[in-house]
Amino acid sequence: MRIDIITVLPELLRSPFEASILKRAIDKGLVEVHLHNLRDYSTNKHKNVDDYQFGGGAGMVMMIEPIDACITKLKSEREYDEVIYMTPDGETLNQGMANQMSMLKNIIILCGHYKGVDQRVRDHFITKEISIGDFVLSGGELAAAVVADSIIRLIPGVLSNETSALTDSFQDNLLSPPIYTRPAEYKGWKVPDVLLSGNFSKIDQWREDKALEHTKNRRPDLLE
Amino acid sequence: MRIDIITVLPELLRSPFEASILKRAIDKGLVEVHLHNLRDYSTNKHKNVDDYQFGGGAGMVMMIEPIDACITKLKSEREYDEVIYMTPDGETLNQGMANQMSMLKNIIILCGHYKGVDQRVRDHFITKEISIGDFVLSGGELAAAVVADSIIRLIPGVLSNETSALTDSFQDNLLSPPIYTRPAEYKGWKVPDVLLSGNFSKIDQWREDKALEHTKNRRPDLLE
Repeated sequence: MRIDIITVLPELLRSPFEASILKRAIDKGLVEVHLHNLRDYSTNKHKNVDDYQFGGGAGMVMMIEPIDACITKLKSEREYDEVIYMTPDGETLNQGMANQMSMLKNIIILCGHYKGVDQRVRDHFITKEISIGDFVLSGGELAAAVVADSIIRLIPGVLSNETSALTDSFQDNLLSPPIYTRPAEYKGWKVPDVLLSGNFSKIDQWREDKALEHTKNRRPDLLE
Repeated sequence: MRIDIITVLPELLRSPFEASILKRAIDKGLVEVHLHNLRDYSTNKHKNVDDYQFGGGAGMVMMIEPIDACITKLKSEREYDEVIYMTPDGETLNQGMANQMSMLKNIIILCGHYKGVDQRVRDHFITKEISIGDFVLSGGELAAAVVADSIIRLIPGVLSNETSALTDSFQDNLLSPPIYTRPAEYKGWKVPDVLLSGNFSKIDQWREDKALEHTKNRRPDLLE
């Protein structure tokens, strides 16, 4: 899989892709992540990529021309399955979307910044608009990193133990049951006996019950 | 405001806090962000912070002892309003929560990693559990950066123009209306005439109508 991220702040995105699972996936050749600095596509001499809003109002707007130039260049090099725009009013990311996107070949992710992009970019270049939630960030960069992370870890071979992703929260519409590790007792706080019993069918049943109970308490909407 | 982030991957979090608005807020002294490497609090000689699950199953669990040591040290130095744990089954972050948290003085954010933390950490040390959405990430680090970003940009003085945050999506339960900047015409695609009219009461009305229409189409749930 190849992910091209277009941003005014490529430096913000460096460390997330240079650590941990994402770095390992890149090193293994399972995914390529390319960061593109939108300023490199600005045609004016100050390398501006934003301008004031028509009609007035606070906040700058990202101009269409450099975005067009960058997307058009990328599309001339290969075909893309999706051109994604990160925006608070997009479709809210969930695990099902991450699963689907993890099967795509090439995607572009455009990070909004300032007040966002000129609407004509959205009308003419974007095929999918994604939000990571009902909150506003200072830019789309962290949101793009979140989308990339949620997708990349699902690509076969990325996680060392594939069952580890399959037992995650949301894959079966249930939250995870509580988990414990050593020591069995810490400051008087004990691990539930059943987990130390060695009776695996009992353990499975306990986990199922706890997952269901936890989901009922916290997220009854997932059970509907 | 002071934010202490406890993580096994501090290096993953560096660049988001060294760029853009978050860096400026830190440079201005409006917020302090401290990254703590959990391995520094491990008492065993291999600096392990995780171990196998009791009861079996894929994925490692973060041990209680180093987390206790780190949180206890921080609490001995100052009082904290919240000790937050980032987890997919926490309360879903929204703009209202970000607004509230932006008024706190000191918070700790513990990043889950691997399969998560020993349940006893959650039972005895955590005061608030936050999820950024219904999807799973390879760790809580990006989620912690998202929470920090959503909060920090709301601290007075961080954004150069405070009205810029007040007109964001979600602050009034409406999505933002479309925005445009120069050029007024690009490849035949024109900016709506009203925005070029100079008639500001008409422009305000158009924006209100468009915000409402956009919210009705995309997120009718916000209007309920």
